Amino acid sequence: MRMDGYSWGEQPEQEDSIKLNTNENPYPPSPNLNATLSQITLNSLRRYPHPTADPLRDEIAKLHSLQRENILITHGGDEALRLSFTTFLDPKHCFGMTDPSYSLYPVLSEINDSPVIRIPLEPDWKIPEHFSQTLNDSDVKLACIVNPHAPSGYLSSGNEIKRIAEQFRGLLLVDEAYVDFVDPELKHDLTYLVEELENILILRTFSKGYSLAGLRLGYLIGNPKLIDPIIRKTRDSYNIGFLEQQLGLEAIKHRDYSSTTWGLVRESREKLKIELQKIGFKVYPSQTNFLLVEIDSSEMLPAKSICTFLKSRGIFIRYFDTERLSNKLRISIGTPEQNDKLVSELINLLSKNTK
Amino acid sequence: MRMDGYSWGEQPEQEDSIKLNTNENPYPPSPNLNATLSQITLNSLRRYPHPTADPLRDEIAKLHSLQRENILITHGGDEALRLSFTTFLDPKHCFGMTDPSYSLYPVLSEINDSPVIRIPLEPDWKIPEHFSQTLNDSDVKLACIVNPHAPSGYLSSGNEIKRIAEQFRGLLLVDEAYVDFVDPELKHDLTYLVEELENILILRTFSKGYSLAGLRLGYLIGNPKLIDPIIRKTRDSYNIGFLEQQLGLEAIKHRDYSSTTWGLVRESREKLKIELQKIGFKVYPSQTNFLLVEIDSSEMLPAKSICTFLKSRGIFIRYFDTERLSNKLRISIGTPEQNDKLVSELINLLSKNTK
Repeated sequence: MRMDGYSWGEQPEQEDSIKLNTNENPYPPSPNLNATLSQITLNSLRRYPHPTADPLRDEIAKLHSLQRENILITHGGDEALRLSFTTFLDPKHCFGMTDPSYSLYPVLSEINDSPVIRIPLEPDWKIPEHFSQTLNDSDVKLACIVNPHAPSGYLSSGNEIKRIAEQFRGLLLVDEAYVDFVDPELKHDLTYLVEELENILILRTFSKGYSLAGLRLGYLIGNPKLIDPIIRKTRDSYNIGFLEQQLGLEAIKHRDYSSTTWGLVRESREKLKIELQKIGFKVYPSQTNFLLVEIDSSEMLPAKSICTFLKSRGIFIRYFDTERLSNKLRISIGTPEQNDKLVSELINLLSKNTK
Repeated sequence: MRMDGYSWGEQPEQEDSIKLNTNENPYPPSPNLNATLSQITLNSLRRYPHPTADPLRDEIAKLHSLQRENILITHGGDEALRLSFTTFLDPKHCFGMTDPSYSLYPVLSEINDSPVIRIPLEPDWKIPEHFSQTLNDSDVKLACIVNPHAPSGYLSSGNEIKRIAEQFRGLLLVDEAYVDFVDPELKHDLTYLVEELENILILRTFSKGYSLAGLRLGYLIGNPKLIDPIIRKTRDSYNIGFLEQQLGLEAIKHRDYSSTTWGLVRESREKLKIELQKIGFKVYPSQTNFLLVEIDSSEMLPAKSICTFLKSRGIFIRYFDTERLSNKLRISIGTPEQNDKLVSELINLLSKNTK
C-alpha cells in the first residue's frame, strides 16, 4: 500500500464538549424513532435483513417522485462513494474533482489505483466554466462534485450542474450530503435529472439532515442503468442492517420533523455569520450547516492557533492543513447556546491577542 | 462489468415460513440486548460513531486473549472478505479457494479482476494434502478456506490449518463463520496462530452464533501488520454504526447465553442427522448449524424437486445448482419443532414418490 488513508474528524469522548467539527445536525432525530426502536423485537435481528432494502427504496422513491429502480440504499454516503469508484472506474482510468473538495475522494481514487485530476475552484468557490472540458481533455471517467460545496458552503445552481453533466463524457456524481440545509426558497432540486441523463448519480445521506450520523445510512439516486449493476454486482450482499432499514423508513416518514430543524439551522447560520463577521472573520456564503471563515493573520492569531485554543476550551472545529485552507476554519452550526459559547470564547481570545 | 453477482438465499416475507436456507441460529439473541436497545437515546445516533469501534475491539480481544491491535470490526463477514481482497490482492494476482466453497469468494475475486484457482476437496470434503503446494505453484497471493466448511459442515483440525498456513506463501483467510457450533470437546481454536504467523486472518461473524444476522457485524483477527493497513487505509471511515457497536458489545458480554443455544443446535443436529438417515439420505458429518445431505435419485426424487416441494409447504432449504452439489441439499438446523415439521413433510413426500 502506497498511501495514507482518510483522516476522520476528531470524535471527543466527553459528553459536554461542543462538537462543531464534523457537521452533524445539532438537533436530535425525530422522536418518532424512539417508538421504532422500542418496537424492535430481538427475533427480527436473528434473520438476515431485506437484501436490497426495498421498503426503504420505495419510500425514498416516493419522496423524489421516482421509481424503486432509481434508488440504491447504502451504508452511509461513504459506501455510496466507494461503490461508485469500484463499479464505474477501472484502475488507471482518471478520476476528477474540484480542489478543494471532500478529502475522502482522492483516498478512494488512490485505493482504486486511479490518477486524480484536480480542478481549482474560482476564488469565490464557483466551479470554473471549463470544468467539463478539462475533465474530457484528461479522459476522466468519474468525477465527484460536492454541492452545496464542502468545505466552503457554496451552492452551484441546478442549471450549472446540468450543463456540467451534459458536457462531461464520463459519469458525474453529485454529492448532496448537505442539500437538506439549502434555503427552500431557492427550489434547488436535481433529482429530476436522473430521468433525463444517464451519466449522473446523486448522493444523499441521513447523517446530516436527518441527524443520524451514528446510523450509517445514505442513498444514491440515478438511472436504473447505473443503479442496477451496483445492486447486482459490486455492493456487499446484505449491505443494510435491519435497524437501519427500519429507522431510515421512519426518518423519511417523519421528514417534516427534520425539516423543522433545517429551518432552525438556517436561522442560526445567518445569525452566526453576522457575529463572526463582527469579530473580523471573512465568512463565505453558505447553503450548508457549516460556515467557512477566513482569518487575516496579519491582524489576528493564525487559524490553526484559534482551532487549538477552542479545543482547549472544549469546542471542536475543523482546521485543514492545506495551502488554500490553512488560513481558514470550518465551523459546524450548533444550537444557539453552542454558537453563543463559540462566539464568546472567540471574542475572549481575540480581544487579548489582536496584533 | 463482465460478471454475475452473488446470489443471496431467499428471504421469504411470510412470518410463519420455516427458514432453513441461510443458516441463521434458530434461537433469538440474548434477551439482555433488549435492555441495550431500550437504553439507546436518539441523541447518541446524531453523532458519528466511534471510527474504529475500540470498546468492542477491546472486549473481543479480551475474549480471545489478544490485543486491540489484533482485531478489526467489520460490517458483517462480507465486509471482512471484501476488505481482505482490496487490501491484500492486487488486480491480476491469483486468488485461491477450495471447490466447493462459499459462493461469494469467486464473485469478489472477479470484482478484483483476479483469476480464481479452485482446488477440489476430497470426496469426504477434506482439504487435499497438496493444497498449499498447488496455491504456491500458481503464485496465489490470497486464499480463503471456510472452516468448518460450507456447505459440507466438515471441520479441518487446527493442526491441518496451521500446516497449510505455514506452507502457503500468500495470505490465508480462514472464514470461521460457523465455528461457534463446533463441539467444545474438540477444543478447536486457531486464534493463537495470529501471534505465531503473519499470513493468517481469521474471520468471525455475529450473524450465526450470536443470532444477529440482521445487525451486520463481524470481525477479523490477525497480526497487527495485517489489521493496521485495513483500519487506516481501505475500510470506509465509519464502517460500524453506533447501534451495532453497542449491541455487539452486549452480545459478547452475554456470550454464555448464545453459547447455550449452540449446545441446543448441536443436540438438534445429531437428532436430525439420525432422522434424515432413516429417510434414506446420506448425511455428511457436520460441526456447523447445518447438514449437507445427499440424495440417491435412482431411489427417490431429485434434490431440486425435494427443495421445490418443501418450499410449496413453507419450508425453505438450500439447493446449489453446481455439478458436485446438484444431488445434495443444505439444511440449516431449526428449532426442534421446525426440524420435526421438516422430517414429517419429507416422510410424507417420499413415501408417495419412492421409485
